[in-house]
Amino acid sequence: MKKILTSLLGLYAITAMAQTPNTYNVGGKLYPQVNPDKSVTFQFTAPSADKVVLNLGKDYEMTKDEKGVWSVTTDPQVVGFHYYAVKVGGLGVIDPAGEVFYGTSKWSSAVEVPEDAVAADYYTPKQDVPQGAVRSVRFYSDVCKEWRRMYVYTPAEYYDNPEKRYPVLYLQHGGGEDETGWIFQGRADVILDNLIAEGKAEPMIIVMNSGYAQVPGSSDSFDAFEQMITEEVIPFVDARYRTIADREHRATAGLSWGAKQAYDLALGYPQYFSAVGGFSGIIVVGEFGRSNPGIMDKTKRKAAYNGIFANPKQFNKDFSVLFIANGEAEGSHLADMSKTLKKDGIKNTFYQSPETAHEWLTWRRCLYNYAQLIFKK
Amino acid sequence: MKKILTSLLGLYAITAMAQTPNTYNVGGKLYPQVNPDKSVTFQFTAPSADKVVLNLGKDYEMTKDEKGVWSVTTDPQVVGFHYYAVKVGGLGVIDPAGEVFYGTSKWSSAVEVPEDAVAADYYTPKQDVPQGAVRSVRFYSDVCKEWRRMYVYTPAEYYDNPEKRYPVLYLQHGGGEDETGWIFQGRADVILDNLIAEGKAEPMIIVMNSGYAQVPGSSDSFDAFEQMITEEVIPFVDARYRTIADREHRATAGLSWGAKQAYDLALGYPQYFSAVGGFSGIIVVGEFGRSNPGIMDKTKRKAAYNGIFANPKQFNKDFSVLFIANGEAEGSHLADMSKTLKKDGIKNTFYQSPETAHEWLTWRRCLYNYAQLIFKK
Repeated sequence: MKKILTSLLGLYAITAMAQTPNTYNVGGKLYPQVNPDKSVTFQFTAPSADKVVLNLGKDYEMTKDEKGVWSVTTDPQVVGFHYYAVKVGGLGVIDPAGEVFYGTSKWSSAVEVPEDAVAADYYTPKQDVPQGAVRSVRFYSDVCKEWRRMYVYTPAEYYDNPEKRYPVLYLQHGGGEDETGWIFQGRADVILDNLIAEGKAEPMIIVMNSGYAQVPGSSDSFDAFEQMITEEVIPFVDARYRTIADREHRATAGLSWGAKQAYDLALGYPQYFSAVGGFSGIIVVGEFGRSNPGIMDKTKRKAAYNGIFANPKQFNKDFSVLFIANGEAEGSHLADMSKTLKKDGIKNTFYQSPETAHEWLTWRRCLYNYAQLIFKK
Repeated sequence: MKKILTSLLGLYAITAMAQTPNTYNVGGKLYPQVNPDKSVTFQFTAPSADKVVLNLGKDYEMTKDEKGVWSVTTDPQVVGFHYYAVKVGGLGVIDPAGEVFYGTSKWSSAVEVPEDAVAADYYTPKQDVPQGAVRSVRFYSDVCKEWRRMYVYTPAEYYDNPEKRYPVLYLQHGGGEDETGWIFQGRADVILDNLIAEGKAEPMIIVMNSGYAQVPGSSDSFDAFEQMITEEVIPFVDARYRTIADREHRATAGLSWGAKQAYDLALGYPQYFSAVGGFSGIIVVGEFGRSNPGIMDKTKRKAAYNGIFANPKQFNKDFSVLFIANGEAEGSHLADMSKTLKKDGIKNTFYQSPETAHEWLTWRRCLYNYAQLIFKK
């Protein structure tokens, strides 16, 4: 009896302490592994390498054993989605052990430090939840003179209601990412499937474009992006899908670098949009940079976007949602911006994601909250 | 005048001799480059590496300059799509310079040694050709006890004809690849868009699944795959899309390892399929292996698949298309199989892709030819 009990306890202890292979490992690969303390253990076999460095937030020098296997265990990480990179002999590479995600301006490796199942429920696919469709759509941009790709999500009910028309959310990724980000990293399709099934969000179409756009020969990207979205993408989407093609049924949102683009689209082209969400990104007034205080300067703020903030009454009438959000670990500058705008009389919703950083778990939560606010009758 | 002429000639010479960055390079990366003689030049900055090896068909040891830049130029390659790998310090990695493709059982780097524009026309997107939609569809497999993903292509006209129903092609990737292969590497969507626009192929739905399927605890993959396709995938697709749900309007095809799966599906489950294409893969009779002579043995052939080849008249009545194909560089074993079957009275179409090898250019051409044969009234 004692022996069995000991074995059972031993088993329990092993289970409780078990390392879990990263969600994104392919082909049954064991490493990277996420440990119970949320540190991550990496292992690579590189017998003839002099030096292997693992970057997950910061550099970790790996150590080699007698068999040429390099290992390192990182510091505990905050929960969520983290890009990592491996440097071997000074060359930055992608880990072949896992799925890849377009981020840091290239296809990149990533680890998901999982939340508990309850917290993760809203971005977990469920058998009893009807699925929307995500399709990759090529289109030729005359602005950029190139073939481009957008991802388009239509809700599960779209093809059951051949006459019904839908509102559209234009959703942007962050710097160094692309149109795949909100599906691959963000799981926007699963989040919306679940929200719609619960009746918490209106059925909507989501359109995801790469934010990188350039008129050949020009160095500016933001202007070309706005021109492409307003003159090409919106008409294309309105022609191809059953949209409600007016500003009341068009929203935009973006994260980080894409938050600037979302704000620029909605505030710069209010004839197209009636709702905007900025996830982990400030409203940029003046030069674009890491921290831009323009919005916090009353004179600059009132002059920005053709004076859109100068008339709060009109703004509140025109914009059904101004959603400002970030992760708790990102600091208070967006909470301050939200308060400042509220003091001006500009209605807005502020959301802060508990404990998370400048990464996709924050943005999944932002989308989850924002999607429940827009297109409400 | 002479100077201008020299300059112009010089320019021409440079253009004609110019290296071209690989089609799949991201973010304006210059290497890998494809040279006019179809060799490929690779460059990596790895100042502290002892050894960098590039594998493109075979290993090439790279050489380092004084700045720590490693380079190599490979032998001339046949045109088409080739996976490559980089080994640094003994660790096989993915090149961060480019797009990635699921192949060799992991996300992998690849170079496209381009054909001339005329030859490549059929897999090149065109502005005046309406696009079908490709969507990623999650489904839960009770056979495999896991969430899986399929890619589904619907032709451009699908949503303009809400009452029309369509035939379905079940299309399989090769060993070490997955459900993304036919879209990412194969460009099946573009090929079908172009064929349908020209009236050369019937508008059809294409369903692409990962060929790796396993009943938990079992080591066999092929049986689980067949069970999953026939008992789960086909009913799911017939319920969700406007298919013509009978064997006359269901075809399958696959490449290499997936050719075996396609043959096994069509010949093993003729109640579901009336057409089959095997690209670069033999009909496997007996043990699965690299070269399987079973099909060339008359007794074994006549006994295979419940004797389906024993009654040529019935076979020819039941199967509208048996398409056997490979690349010229792959040898004559499939031509021999085709001839042997013809001698038996089994009607089949043999296609050989000029000059190409066991790679995706062969399979793009196979699909191009096969798609024109199936579902013809």
